[in-house]
Amino acid sequence: MTTKCFDVVGIGNAIVDVLVQADDRFLGDHGLTKGTMALIDEQQAERLYASVGPGLETSGGSAANTLAGIAQLGGRAGFIGRVRDDQLGAIFSHDIRSVGAHFDTPAARSGPSTARCLILVTPDAQRTMCTYLGASVGLDPTDLDLTLVSQARLLYLEGYLWDSEEAKRAFLAAAEAIRATGGEVALSLSDAFCVERHRDSFLELVDGHVDLLFANEMEITALYRANSFEEAADQVRGRCKVAALTRSEQGSLILSGDTTIQVEPVVLGNLVDTTGAGDLYAAGFLYGYTRGEPLERCGQLGSLCAGAVVTQLGPRPQGSLKDLVASHLG
Amino acid sequence: MTTKCFDVVGIGNAIVDVLVQADDRFLGDHGLTKGTMALIDEQQAERLYASVGPGLETSGGSAANTLAGIAQLGGRAGFIGRVRDDQLGAIFSHDIRSVGAHFDTPAARSGPSTARCLILVTPDAQRTMCTYLGASVGLDPTDLDLTLVSQARLLYLEGYLWDSEEAKRAFLAAAEAIRATGGEVALSLSDAFCVERHRDSFLELVDGHVDLLFANEMEITALYRANSFEEAADQVRGRCKVAALTRSEQGSLILSGDTTIQVEPVVLGNLVDTTGAGDLYAAGFLYGYTRGEPLERCGQLGSLCAGAVVTQLGPRPQGSLKDLVASHLG
Repeated sequence: MTTKCFDVVGIGNAIVDVLVQADDRFLGDHGLTKGTMALIDEQQAERLYASVGPGLETSGGSAANTLAGIAQLGGRAGFIGRVRDDQLGAIFSHDIRSVGAHFDTPAARSGPSTARCLILVTPDAQRTMCTYLGASVGLDPTDLDLTLVSQARLLYLEGYLWDSEEAKRAFLAAAEAIRATGGEVALSLSDAFCVERHRDSFLELVDGHVDLLFANEMEITALYRANSFEEAADQVRGRCKVAALTRSEQGSLILSGDTTIQVEPVVLGNLVDTTGAGDLYAAGFLYGYTRGEPLERCGQLGSLCAGAVVTQLGPRPQGSLKDLVASHLG
Repeated sequence: MTTKCFDVVGIGNAIVDVLVQADDRFLGDHGLTKGTMALIDEQQAERLYASVGPGLETSGGSAANTLAGIAQLGGRAGFIGRVRDDQLGAIFSHDIRSVGAHFDTPAARSGPSTARCLILVTPDAQRTMCTYLGASVGLDPTDLDLTLVSQARLLYLEGYLWDSEEAKRAFLAAAEAIRATGGEVALSLSDAFCVERHRDSFLELVDGHVDLLFANEMEITALYRANSFEEAADQVRGRCKVAALTRSEQGSLILSGDTTIQVEPVVLGNLVDTTGAGDLYAAGFLYGYTRGEPLERCGQLGSLCAGAVVTQLGPRPQGSLKDLVASHLG
């Protein structure tokens, strides 16, 4: 087995978020479904941007947020994703490196600009996302640093990758590489609409390639076309080694073999913006998991990190996650 | 007298802020003086950026923040400043227009990139700024829309403009244009180091061209090389129509002829980041002033807007300033 220099290496869309405040009426007027992610093209992105208020720009991307979180916790994290060699690409690259994560996917020197996600935060702190995938969609197997992947104990992937044929192929190559070195594979289902688009692929993945699955209530229910969360949980049990199912204020449920662990949510302050909650849950969980912590503590670490990110605007916690863990979980 | 379609038109550096958290030691290691603004070149900007943690990007620029604030309050505001036709320039342009301010200075199509200000926020909520002026320094009299200026009741300028010869000339042309149409001129001294660099010019301006002067304690003391705030206040009295001197938690002092008005500060929550406090004080003040409000209420409006912006990260209030005024000042 290869020596593992990384706890987790993730592959995902490299995105800069534009956070703006909006009301329910705005979502309705633009045909957007609250809490979900819609893909838009560059023209739609420009048009939508022109219709919103001032924004706050910050690095995002689901898997990238998770890997940044793992690095902030002190884990050894690497990220693979594609930006363009533009100003937003420089921001993305700086931010993920500055928390100590390894990131050296070469920036595209031509083609679409760095991906942007317009995140509409409503007064109820919910986020609704419109993503222009730009350069990130061009990630292909040649961008994949398989040496990096094979040095990881665990490979983490976001379901959003399935929206690009090239990225999907890159993922499958990466999964093969990590398996060959004895590593594990984790997948996040990302978004209920994303699950609708790629249900068959995801079902096959969960059964055949994935050791750890992360999903929220809407996503797991969509995956199995289930009538209830409980039904979906019954369906997924046993299909992969661990399924961590998040349920917002109801905490999370961890299923592993016959074991079921209920993890309470952590409330650290007023709910400001749920952007990044699922990503940071995965960060805490995987940080614990790759350190060999029991699943219950992995879930508690996840709850704590998610609890931190929802008290602020933006998908990456501004304070120290290490200090937070030290003061809450010892 | 020309019909006035704008309450305030401002000229300033068009800047995108990069907010990062830092500690006192970082300031010391990099030879930075807390609470001030240092000018850096592109190379220094890159080097400094590489050494800091993740950032939050948001539109800034002192006069631009003030004009955005006036627009948010419901005032008719215009801004003149120069960005490059790059991604940060697009962010700046979008943000100021999206709050209703008029902004149509053509973006530079070559030359340096849009100005960036690295703002280091220390745990005491103080901000220390390092500015790469980039495209903004190229603002010159040909960029000046004198029709726009002459349509304003008041012309607002930031002292930072004095760091560029071209921008200085642009300002003098604008001051002449507004005078010719019966408008007034307001100046913010911007920063104590900026005052040190341009003391003679500022002294001459205050005596000869400026109707309203905005300065904080450090700046007004630096301007007159005074030994105390009181001494500086004595010096400035009578030299311009109104001097509004801000003193952080001691509120502000408004001097006009023989009149002295003490305005209390407004505390709306925990102090998070003082970035934009002076800019938003000027916004509230000028919004009231151009509506013919008594000076005391102008000061209260200033205190309220400053009080709002310091409870959040970044130099432009995220909530509604109109609602804030309605609930606090009726």
